[in-house]
Amino acid sequence: MKALEEKILKEGTVLPGNILKVTSFLNHRIDADFMMEMGKEIARLFENDGVTKILTVETSGIAIAMGAAVQMHLPLVFAKKHKTGNISGAVYSTVVHSYTHGVDYNIVVNREYISKDDNVLVVDDFLANGKALEGLIDIVGQAGAKVAGCSCAIEKGFQQGGDRLRSKGIKVESLAIVESMSDSSLTFRK
Amino acid sequence: MKALEEKILKEGTVLPGNILKVTSFLNHRIDADFMMEMGKEIARLFENDGVTKILTVETSGIAIAMGAAVQMHLPLVFAKKHKTGNISGAVYSTVVHSYTHGVDYNIVVNREYISKDDNVLVVDDFLANGKALEGLIDIVGQAGAKVAGCSCAIEKGFQQGGDRLRSKGIKVESLAIVESMSDSSLTFRK
Repeated sequence: MKALEEKILKEGTVLPGNILKVTSFLNHRIDADFMMEMGKEIARLFENDGVTKILTVETSGIAIAMGAAVQMHLPLVFAKKHKTGNISGAVYSTVVHSYTHGVDYNIVVNREYISKDDNVLVVDDFLANGKALEGLIDIVGQAGAKVAGCSCAIEKGFQQGGDRLRSKGIKVESLAIVESMSDSSLTFRK
Repeated sequence: MKALEEKILKEGTVLPGNILKVTSFLNHRIDADFMMEMGKEIARLFENDGVTKILTVETSGIAIAMGAAVQMHLPLVFAKKHKTGNISGAVYSTVVHSYTHGVDYNIVVNREYISKDDNVLVVDDFLANGKALEGLIDIVGQAGAKVAGCSCAIEKGFQQGGDRLRSKGIKVESLAIVESMSDSSLTFRK
């Protein structure tokens, strides 16, 4: 998605530890109109896949997942990172390792909100090693539902997550794939 | 907002500790189309207030704040609950007590994302004791910006947060105000 690549080049900053900081529009300050543009593109990419529900994980995935859910007129479920008092009843859960924060956490979805009849599109802001998406796919599997595919705003193509999922036959559509990045340059996969 | 009152009566559950569970559409499973309807109502309520930015706090506020931001074509900033490695540079921060989780936490906004020229609409899913909104208003004040007002989906009118903010002259527009609730009944303020 050309507009996203341009926005990354204009507003993104590369920080130590392979972190691409795009807090100005994607995951701290949110460019709401641009989320809707990205949502429109996700809707186009999956328009023939019979998606019934969007699934993401708190926190940074929610805004782009909302863009997709609004454009596709579908419900959105976000997995919670801890089982809280507000989630009653039985849940699906799995453990995900965050390389960004260096910790394991539980992601949890109430069983009421994904059923075996669902065909789930998994959405997130970033795709790097793929651990968050794999956790969400695991939860879809626990529900006996199907995975329609995955869509992320920014994939770090130089890490293995996206290609590992594709090699399993999962449809993965990232709106921008960063091929390489350093302090001074950033290139996209064509 | 009549449609919200009806949705609360149909889908909400009252749990011990004055918790109103509305995870089926507001803060776990998200009814995206309904978020846009609520956003449209917030846009109408604040159409003459010169709002330049929406501010909320992760996690549950993001979806409804997105609804408002999309309808008003404004940027959205969500305060983070911990200072993470992804937020660099100077931040505004304040301490908020969560009665739901029984803990204090820091809420943090990067200084780049609110300026003294902003006129900020503070949005959240719930308004009960008002601590989260007061924290967000404190952050707006640290930035030297103005508070255009506050808007929440559901206010617990039997707690004091909303009326305390109103008594300070702040415009507070809640889309539904619960006057009383118990296992067996729930009434709204007219």
